[in-house]
Amino acid sequence: MTTATTSVSVVTAEDLLKQWQGHRRLTRRTIEAFPEDKLFEFSVGGMRPFSEMAWEFIRMAVPIVDGVSTGKWEEYKGEKPATKADLLRLWDVQTKALDEKFRQIPAHRFSEVDKAFGQWEMPGIGTIQYAIDNEIHHRGQGFVYLRALGIEPPHFWERE
Amino acid sequence: MTTATTSVSVVTAEDLLKQWQGHRRLTRRTIEAFPEDKLFEFSVGGMRPFSEMAWEFIRMAVPIVDGVSTGKWEEYKGEKPATKADLLRLWDVQTKALDEKFRQIPAHRFSEVDKAFGQWEMPGIGTIQYAIDNEIHHRGQGFVYLRALGIEPPHFWERE
Repeated sequence: MTTATTSVSVVTAEDLLKQWQGHRRLTRRTIEAFPEDKLFEFSVGGMRPFSEMAWEFIRMAVPIVDGVSTGKWEEYKGEKPATKADLLRLWDVQTKALDEKFRQIPAHRFSEVDKAFGQWEMPGIGTIQYAIDNEIHHRGQGFVYLRALGIEPPHFWERE
Repeated sequence: MTTATTSVSVVTAEDLLKQWQGHRRLTRRTIEAFPEDKLFEFSVGGMRPFSEMAWEFIRMAVPIVDGVSTGKWEEYKGEKPATKADLLRLWDVQTKALDEKFRQIPAHRFSEVDKAFGQWEMPGIGTIQYAIDNEIHHRGQGFVYLRALGIEPPHFWERE
């Protein structure tokens, strides 16, 4: 008989990184799906345009991985991209940095409680999961913008 | 010196259940935030109303946990709720069932590859993660509907 074990590990650090990068590929396709002007101007219900959401993802991803890794919480310092091409270029640079930096997170830092950016107190894994969930949440909103523009969004289930 | 260990466990089955139930509490508040008629009729860009998305979450959550647990993939058989009160009642029943059934998943089934509902081949954890991500994604869309209706959505970061 197999018994249930709720303390069983179901996600390793490498699994989580792969899952995140899969989501990031989908987010990249979402950015690409917007016409240039709509990316920076269009929204529904008085919300932010999708470029602002993508910019938020960039300001969260690598800085959070750096913070979880080192305990030093520093805001992203780069310039805000003003064109779709610049946004995608920066996205790709961050994707590569994320791959390298994530794999350098010391094992104990995932469970260690820290105050992210001096404000949000939780274990490293909680802060990382929040960044991923926040990306899924707002990208879903980007899908509504695309539909409202009459544009077919990328497939949610495609992550390659 | 602490070295990075990408094979380190970062999420246990119990962690994942807690995370999911936190998301479900937020989704419940999102359902509650809709006026009755808008829940069943309002949408943006020709998409589904939020009641249909919530109905999809219900048809995925417990059936997926049952399938991962037992290897038997059966579609949800209950009736589709026609009022907000009925939808919330069903939501609460499923929340309780999820708590009980999730904790019964045999440890080895999280990593075992299976064909969910005879169609989607992946490890148990992949199917469960897909259900959670799908809920975050579509709930984000519900937030846009609420904003378009001039209604303040619940706080994304509140999960209690």
